[in-house]
Amino acid sequence: MSELKFEIIPGGVAAAGGFMASGVSAGVKYIGKKDIALVYSHCEAAAAGVFTTNVVKAAPVLLDMERVASGKARALVINSGNANACNGPGGMEDAMAMTAEAAGLLGITVESVLVCSTGVIGQPMPMDKVLAGIREAVAALGPDGGRDAAEAIMTTDLDLKEYAVSFNLDGKAVTVGAMAKGSGMIHPNMATMLGFITTDAAIDSGCLKECLTYAVDRSFNMVTVDGDTSTNDTVLALANGMAGNRAITSGDEGFLIFREALTNVCVHLAKALARDGEGATKLIEVTVVNAPTDHDARLAARSVASSSLFKAAVFGKDANWGRIICAAGYSGAQFNPGAVDIYLGGVQVAGNGSGLAFDEETAARVLEEDTVQVRIDMKEGSHGACAWGCDLTYEYVKINGSYRT
Amino acid sequence: MSELKFEIIPGGVAAAGGFMASGVSAGVKYIGKKDIALVYSHCEAAAAGVFTTNVVKAAPVLLDMERVASGKARALVINSGNANACNGPGGMEDAMAMTAEAAGLLGITVESVLVCSTGVIGQPMPMDKVLAGIREAVAALGPDGGRDAAEAIMTTDLDLKEYAVSFNLDGKAVTVGAMAKGSGMIHPNMATMLGFITTDAAIDSGCLKECLTYAVDRSFNMVTVDGDTSTNDTVLALANGMAGNRAITSGDEGFLIFREALTNVCVHLAKALARDGEGATKLIEVTVVNAPTDHDARLAARSVASSSLFKAAVFGKDANWGRIICAAGYSGAQFNPGAVDIYLGGVQVAGNGSGLAFDEETAARVLEEDTVQVRIDMKEGSHGACAWGCDLTYEYVKINGSYRT
Repeated sequence: MSELKFEIIPGGVAAAGGFMASGVSAGVKYIGKKDIALVYSHCEAAAAGVFTTNVVKAAPVLLDMERVASGKARALVINSGNANACNGPGGMEDAMAMTAEAAGLLGITVESVLVCSTGVIGQPMPMDKVLAGIREAVAALGPDGGRDAAEAIMTTDLDLKEYAVSFNLDGKAVTVGAMAKGSGMIHPNMATMLGFITTDAAIDSGCLKECLTYAVDRSFNMVTVDGDTSTNDTVLALANGMAGNRAITSGDEGFLIFREALTNVCVHLAKALARDGEGATKLIEVTVVNAPTDHDARLAARSVASSSLFKAAVFGKDANWGRIICAAGYSGAQFNPGAVDIYLGGVQVAGNGSGLAFDEETAARVLEEDTVQVRIDMKEGSHGACAWGCDLTYEYVKINGSYRT
Repeated sequence: MSELKFEIIPGGVAAAGGFMASGVSAGVKYIGKKDIALVYSHCEAAAAGVFTTNVVKAAPVLLDMERVASGKARALVINSGNANACNGPGGMEDAMAMTAEAAGLLGITVESVLVCSTGVIGQPMPMDKVLAGIREAVAALGPDGGRDAAEAIMTTDLDLKEYAVSFNLDGKAVTVGAMAKGSGMIHPNMATMLGFITTDAAIDSGCLKECLTYAVDRSFNMVTVDGDTSTNDTVLALANGMAGNRAITSGDEGFLIFREALTNVCVHLAKALARDGEGATKLIEVTVVNAPTDHDARLAARSVASSSLFKAAVFGKDANWGRIICAAGYSGAQFNPGAVDIYLGGVQVAGNGSGLAFDEETAARVLEEDTVQVRIDMKEGSHGACAWGCDLTYEYVKINGSYRT
């Protein structure tokens, strides 16, 4: 496979052919903030989803898991400001009512509408506001609505997260667009993060699921902010086929190209999530190379990116590499501690598991940078993984000490 | 078994018959702070240990694991200020030299001396200072040295942690004394915490190991400060038999009494560790009741006590019970989320997995208390567990942003 060329294009979740989106303010969150998003496909789309592993699942998660099993969907309705989790049987009724409202107005079946919620847990949904917001969102749908939709799904996010790429697939221009929200409570295996991907590629739902799982494993599942896996995490993908490419089948060249494009989009958003972690001032990128297995590489990379001690050291610009090898050590990864080399940016700080004399000032400069690169070379095999996190700051404590109030 | 009576007595790790201790300042840590501790038994003692699960193990951990296999020991030498971890082959030589120095001066075999280190990782040990400190510590040994020893093992601990109880075993007064250090990097499965237990009970090393594992599983392994499991965690127990009780054998009444006393001592110290977690202002006690299995109860209790989001909410005095059920949900415990009742102190905040209307002011008062009690009733079985943690504060971030400097 030759190197792939992706063109970054505007439009986010509405960039792909045949998709529209909108985002409106319904008063669920705060006055004047957008909090209802809608995404709509002009024709039926193949659908796939990846959901939280938490045994406590919010009502919309349970509903989507059931509906996405059909492999088809046409619309996504999302609210921020309330997670609709731990609301008893009323929570499911509310989730269904949200999809029914959208379906009725869009003239599509209720089963073809998927729904997500994000926000505080265990508070009844303000359904009057939510349903009024859905009506407004349907009226506002348009091909330029991607940005509004991305704004409407934000909670404590500071930056709006959207991205889209275009590439060639057997002579047709195919687009993959997406939006995501995250911030706190982000951890491998889908922690309060929502991701929505739309594409005009022609691909069946089985192949779409296969590509989505691959991409999510290398992106959203390798991001951590605070180790909490939420009740609501969801990534949904819709593929409506309007690009007119020859339908992608598992394992062909088109499949590999599409999977790489999808992974590229998901990694871009995953890094944006980590960089925008609650209170974060820096992105931490942990790369493990030459590990005995993929599993060991993934465990070690995520553990270092998750370590409160290392995250606090990065905030304090302290080149404390002992916390790196320690976090790799308790990750569950199997490796030879006596063989490990560790680099902070371009500075080697440990060799064969022992400290090296290094220039503290040079190391401190690495820790001044916007992105702190950690590289762990296990020198034992040929497997690798990359994980992303952020530093632990006073601001994180402040934000999470008073989220509800 | 009738209710056991333990008398709390002074003396800490030197309280039990036939033990002496000392703690001196050798300049490993900072000028004027005690940093070398020694514990010595007048006669050979049965010995047992529990060690870190981190694959990166400090040199003294590796040495102790080997030596304690004999089931016998007479002295413990401990330094703070340097972890002697990730120091390559020189680390093991230094650990052995520490035990050789103590053994020579005490006139005992080198194999009967165990060694622990705690502090920064990956810095060579200042052996001149350490060996001079050991010589001073041998000279300072005395029956009243428990407090000095407990002071010498502290790192970022604010409070000295020692405890001792006395109780009757077939007509003989038996004492169990102990000291511990912890603070940051404390997590189930032995995270930078050291615990040392001495007793004059007559018990063989097999029974001692059995009782120690039981006690540690219900105490030190249920404490978490920041989720990091260190390279150095160790709990060691010595039993020299000087109380003159009939030797305890597995499963007899004396065994149960001794095990309960040991657990009592370990739980007391574990709670002290959590309360003194880095930057902590409160102790969080999470009790899970009516769980389907012990394993589920333990997983859920530890996960809630470890959740950064819940810990920050406690600091902010925010009765955010959604974070409690969410953390139980991602813990790996199997339970029915729709059956769970949650209490904060005496206030029920959730019933059958859904929010209840509760008085926010009463709940806020619960969160004002020194110890915040969380009770999770799974209503599914008869198993329970208790875990301890602390709130996450600005101070934690500050301490860990500049530990080395």
